[in-house]
Amino acid sequence: MNKKIAIINAKLFAPDAPEGFVADGFVAIGAGRITALGPMARYVPAPSAEVIDACGSLVMPGLVNGHNHAAMTLFRGLADDLPLMDWLTQHIFPAEARFVTPEMVYWCTRLAAAEMIMSGTTTVADAYFYEDEAARALVETGMRAVAAQGIIDFPAPGVPDPAENVAAAGRFIGRWQGSDLLTPAVFAHSPYTCSSRTLVRAKELARARNVPFFIHLAETRAESGLLAAKWQGSPAAYLQSLDLLDEQTVCVHAVWLDEHDISLLAASRAAVVTCPQSNMKLASGIAPVAELLAAGVRVGLGTDGCASNNDLDLFGEMDTCAKLHKLRSQDPAALKARDVLRMATGHGAGLPGFAAGGGLAVGRPADVILVDLDQPHLTPFYSVDNLVYAAGGADVKSVIINGRLVMADRRILTFDVAETMEMVAGMAAEVKKMR
Amino acid sequence: MNKKIAIINAKLFAPDAPEGFVADGFVAIGAGRITALGPMARYVPAPSAEVIDACGSLVMPGLVNGHNHAAMTLFRGLADDLPLMDWLTQHIFPAEARFVTPEMVYWCTRLAAAEMIMSGTTTVADAYFYEDEAARALVETGMRAVAAQGIIDFPAPGVPDPAENVAAAGRFIGRWQGSDLLTPAVFAHSPYTCSSRTLVRAKELARARNVPFFIHLAETRAESGLLAAKWQGSPAAYLQSLDLLDEQTVCVHAVWLDEHDISLLAASRAAVVTCPQSNMKLASGIAPVAELLAAGVRVGLGTDGCASNNDLDLFGEMDTCAKLHKLRSQDPAALKARDVLRMATGHGAGLPGFAAGGGLAVGRPADVILVDLDQPHLTPFYSVDNLVYAAGGADVKSVIINGRLVMADRRILTFDVAETMEMVAGMAAEVKKMR
Repeated sequence: MNKKIAIINAKLFAPDAPEGFVADGFVAIGAGRITALGPMARYVPAPSAEVIDACGSLVMPGLVNGHNHAAMTLFRGLADDLPLMDWLTQHIFPAEARFVTPEMVYWCTRLAAAEMIMSGTTTVADAYFYEDEAARALVETGMRAVAAQGIIDFPAPGVPDPAENVAAAGRFIGRWQGSDLLTPAVFAHSPYTCSSRTLVRAKELARARNVPFFIHLAETRAESGLLAAKWQGSPAAYLQSLDLLDEQTVCVHAVWLDEHDISLLAASRAAVVTCPQSNMKLASGIAPVAELLAAGVRVGLGTDGCASNNDLDLFGEMDTCAKLHKLRSQDPAALKARDVLRMATGHGAGLPGFAAGGGLAVGRPADVILVDLDQPHLTPFYSVDNLVYAAGGADVKSVIINGRLVMADRRILTFDVAETMEMVAGMAAEVKKMR
Repeated sequence: MNKKIAIINAKLFAPDAPEGFVADGFVAIGAGRITALGPMARYVPAPSAEVIDACGSLVMPGLVNGHNHAAMTLFRGLADDLPLMDWLTQHIFPAEARFVTPEMVYWCTRLAAAEMIMSGTTTVADAYFYEDEAARALVETGMRAVAAQGIIDFPAPGVPDPAENVAAAGRFIGRWQGSDLLTPAVFAHSPYTCSSRTLVRAKELARARNVPFFIHLAETRAESGLLAAKWQGSPAAYLQSLDLLDEQTVCVHAVWLDEHDISLLAASRAAVVTCPQSNMKLASGIAPVAELLAAGVRVGLGTDGCASNNDLDLFGEMDTCAKLHKLRSQDPAALKARDVLRMATGHGAGLPGFAAGGGLAVGRPADVILVDLDQPHLTPFYSVDNLVYAAGGADVKSVIINGRLVMADRRILTFDVAETMEMVAGMAAEVKKMR
């Protein structure tokens, strides 16, 4: 499973070089890690290694999806182009109440994993209900994952009694802590769907077990209004007042932040994950990513779930992210492609639980992808910035996670994708009857 | 070349149906047109037809790219993330002055055609210099095109004397009018790079020859300032004052329009092409597409050239377009996916010169594409809206233009793509030395 691999004759991703890559190099992999890399002139064949001739391809770190509700693939495109509250209360919540079962979470997370692997994602931070089933699916596919059991103060799939929500998350962590590629975590849904007591207890649990803590924060302009009964300030200040912000906390969305909120996040060393396409599709707004980065906040990139995107392709997300912030800043030099590449490869993000971030370097976990540059839309290839502005997930040819070849020439090797699609299509036929 | 084709067992694009498609249908093609279509139950095999079993695929009209400078593929990613004037004056203009030759336009347009066909575009409106070479390349690839010779009041590639610019465009039209798949047109670069006299003469030429007239309009907020010496009002009002607006005029970008400008465009029956990704990347702004559509203006979708996008994938452009206008309107119900599909398939756009618009119907030109839905990221497929929010150009399996199979199973049949990429890569190596 973790035999030696040598990728040869490749361009190597090197974001600090002017063009962002070095030509004609190799990467050697063994025991799940990068054991050597450099120009082909220095390549020494290892007798037992599987050799991948990557001529015409670029080797780069696998992409890190900082926020997903993977099982929501079942609801991909179920209810597009609707006002937010209609979307949630008339379509998504009823569909979840009826169709979210352990089996659904297992198969639909597997489908998400197929899509993510095929578009170059090697690590995902997932958050949903029945998260044991999501974790089981993710581990089987060979992906690296941070899996967070959802906590919400309503009866939820798998946790009918909200009084049990934090305890259920604790049991989830107990079952998965110590896994090889999976880091369990806590996901408190939001400041407006959890009481302050629930939020505090959820963070206490995360602290006690030393696991990451995720929360949706300031996704919509209306969130302050939803908090009005318990707090008069900004949602970020509310989290701060509850002592929820530290370096193990990841604030997802973080759209509606003022300067004070940004300084709070920076001072607390909390991280942020931005989901630009989801925020556009639901008309939530634009997160102040350039300002967060300037303040020293770690910012990762996420797709959000398929019900509000509707795909899990981080290449498209990078493109949108870079362009959106130019528009927001009225400055074409804002949020450069290179910065976004660093966000998506975990190089600059270093999100809690994402051990694999850090780019191509000896000793790093071997989570790498091969991008096929030998295509019309990637010709010419002056620099890696074209990965942001011209590449798509379908350009990913092969995927290695933790030193294991998970996809080769666009064929997933670790599980049966056709079976997975068939299972989800069967479930979707039932969902469709509800429409 | 134009033998009979029968596409069977397919989903058929039908944007007025609730799901936007009908299952299990066929499309019969002969003499360049759709000769029959309907449910498989009504399919009658024709003895001489080539049969394409499209099980798992959707047949839809080919996409229409309303604005491109195709030969600019050579400059794809040459200069990203730069302020607009630096980008233009320090990088793009010098590169064009040095590298735009007839040979460059021919090969780089061919490369663009490969990319466009491979991402489902069957018609393109192109505008550049040495447009004869672009037209020659486009005709050879089998694409349908509107090709416009550029007019600008500076010495330009192929037209060193600006006094000759309108006459050169006239000669171009003379050479190509009456072509089978190619409609010649006039492209006056912009109100700020052409004098009022040039603009009037260019439009007179277009009127005299009854060809479409393209112009960049109100791309940046600064454009009014650039016009200040000759006109105090809006750029749109300036065009109106010169009598340039009629139903054969296409205003490209049209970002900075006020209500009066929108009513001028509507009253004149001029069309608009919006290029959302280019407008984001150059931080130009967001065109008021929803407002233009509401006023009854025909609006098409374009990629713009590769130097400011950096790809020619209209699927990505549709996605961005729909999401961007939700953000702009702060309304997730704004600019629905179905509306954007209509824009991109020419159904609602009906741009000047785009004879092929109009969707799947008997008697229409057979410009159709097959989209492979049997993939994780397109599962489930509740409606065609997922073409906007989840599909990408790489999902296009086969392309038929004017009844001719131009791409089958992602292999282009009409020209040598590898040779084309090699030629352009050779030119790019020279460009790179200039950096």
